[in-house]
Amino acid sequence: MELRIALIGFGVVGQGFVRILAQQEEWLKEQGWDVKLVAVSDIQKGSVYNPDGLNIDTLLNLMLNEKTIAGYPDGVIGFDGTKTISESNANLVVEASWSNLETGEPALSYARRAIEMSKHIVLTNKGPPVLALCELKKLAQDNSVELRYEGTVLSGTPAINLGQLNLSQSGLRGFRGILNGTSNFILTLMEEGQDYDAALKRAQDEGYAEADPTADVDGHDAQGKVVILTNSLLNADIRLSEVHCEGIRGMSKDDIESARKEGKRWKLIASAERIDDGTIIASVKPEKLSLNHPLASVMGATNSITFSTEYLGDVTITGPGAGAFPTGYAIFTDILDIIRCIK
Amino acid sequence: MELRIALIGFGVVGQGFVRILAQQEEWLKEQGWDVKLVAVSDIQKGSVYNPDGLNIDTLLNLMLNEKTIAGYPDGVIGFDGTKTISESNANLVVEASWSNLETGEPALSYARRAIEMSKHIVLTNKGPPVLALCELKKLAQDNSVELRYEGTVLSGTPAINLGQLNLSQSGLRGFRGILNGTSNFILTLMEEGQDYDAALKRAQDEGYAEADPTADVDGHDAQGKVVILTNSLLNADIRLSEVHCEGIRGMSKDDIESARKEGKRWKLIASAERIDDGTIIASVKPEKLSLNHPLASVMGATNSITFSTEYLGDVTITGPGAGAFPTGYAIFTDILDIIRCIK
Repeated sequence: MELRIALIGFGVVGQGFVRILAQQEEWLKEQGWDVKLVAVSDIQKGSVYNPDGLNIDTLLNLMLNEKTIAGYPDGVIGFDGTKTISESNANLVVEASWSNLETGEPALSYARRAIEMSKHIVLTNKGPPVLALCELKKLAQDNSVELRYEGTVLSGTPAINLGQLNLSQSGLRGFRGILNGTSNFILTLMEEGQDYDAALKRAQDEGYAEADPTADVDGHDAQGKVVILTNSLLNADIRLSEVHCEGIRGMSKDDIESARKEGKRWKLIASAERIDDGTIIASVKPEKLSLNHPLASVMGATNSITFSTEYLGDVTITGPGAGAFPTGYAIFTDILDIIRCIK
Repeated sequence: MELRIALIGFGVVGQGFVRILAQQEEWLKEQGWDVKLVAVSDIQKGSVYNPDGLNIDTLLNLMLNEKTIAGYPDGVIGFDGTKTISESNANLVVEASWSNLETGEPALSYARRAIEMSKHIVLTNKGPPVLALCELKKLAQDNSVELRYEGTVLSGTPAINLGQLNLSQSGLRGFRGILNGTSNFILTLMEEGQDYDAALKRAQDEGYAEADPTADVDGHDAQGKVVILTNSLLNADIRLSEVHCEGIRGMSKDDIESARKEGKRWKLIASAERIDDGTIIASVKPEKLSLNHPLASVMGATNSITFSTEYLGDVTITGPGAGAFPTGYAIFTDILDIIRCIK
């Protein structure tokens, strides 16, 4: 079986993914799977397409030395994302560019285009699954292609796949989790005695928080992840506006200290539950957890989700929620799962 | 596709499994899968075989009212385990009887017989995979059948499947975990101020510990699970005797108290790691963990494993490690995985 991949977006995540792809080349061959990268397109770093496959070492060396892949020696250059999807011979598109949480663009258009051209699609941006998961699933079904998006929630820590494969028939009722590493990193520093502003500044200095930290500290990043998990695992079709959202902005040292005196710790908890009448209750908000609560000891930028199930009670998974290799690995496992489904 | 199941062993786990099977009947039909229970054989509770399928409600009512299934109205009664495997029309055998960790019997003979008769096999007893995993895997391959044993480690909490599916290419180097719920329950009571003897007695009263608690408190149960995980996930073939083993017997209130003064907590940690020269270092022993360590907040009878990987760093899963429904669900997910592989 031959899989020809077009990668849209060659930033940190895209480069993490191709490194893993190169490292797993031998193993893929041993499985009898012919997986090659045929196109890379990035709005800033240039693009290149070769129907016979690209050399990943050459691409990474170009990035290292020239910060662009436009000088790749043996391929068609200059295709934008849409042209790469439409005109390359790829049969699988990895979307690792960027997206706006209000419109989902440009990732959403890339996803629709890929599916309409009967190409399998792996997404790493929250935009498309937050705004249009049900539409994309139906489109994928109608076009007989596979759609995966594991990297949009906990990067490569199994979350959607854990829920959809291992826990699918466990009687899943809901989940509670720490889905935003930046705000958890800030709360961890505050536990160590820093105030909010100093903790935020350090999160920015260390690359966890953006210059505008709104999406993280006001809870919107976690809110989007709640929509994706809820619509993927709880057989629902909720929208962002249906998830109550409060962030950690404005939390004070006094808040931290008074929780400590009760033997508790503040965490930004994202949750959703299907209640008895069938409706979904979903929220992101700071909660005081007892120190013995499984989520209370999740520190730093680590993420965690507790799934509540009928047969198993609570099952919790904890791991990284971001990063080049973790998100690159999410893409890689999505591709392996697609191979297993289509072969 | 028709799956005809023979169940060997109708104790707590076997009954938990058939309850789940009955509850999932509609869903299985919706998937287009014809899954029926054709035989149950238990050395104490009797046995019954009907090639067209058994009624699960009738079986459970018989157990409730008569403590035996020998009075089942419509089937062949009296087959022992071996005869059930050999002479029923089952094409999948669930082994949920019992086994001796020194010989693996009778479960090991049942497993070999099922595979030699070209029947898929799901195991819930540690004996066979601890003593003969590589042999059974090869036998299964030679006979073109599937072998699964998720329930032998953390019951239905994804452990082997998590390692073999989701984390298979993550660069797994080793694992550390709390793999024995009874000893963790005892340590939790000791954290609350009880001494070892009182905590053990309560574990026995509540059904967590056997009258002879040796397998749990001396670490042998966890030692067997280390062998299964190591040989399943780290491409190894180690034996029980290669896993250094110390239990929690003899721990004192002073031990607990002195750890507390250091901001730490004792846990019985089971671990294995492939070190740089390729050898495996594996052990079960009490370790003092910092309270911020992810395994330190795993309390009561809950189990947990932290997998150390190259691409993701640490990924931890926490959930139940025993029980009728959790282990029944492990069997059910193993069967679903077999269906996905063979269809």
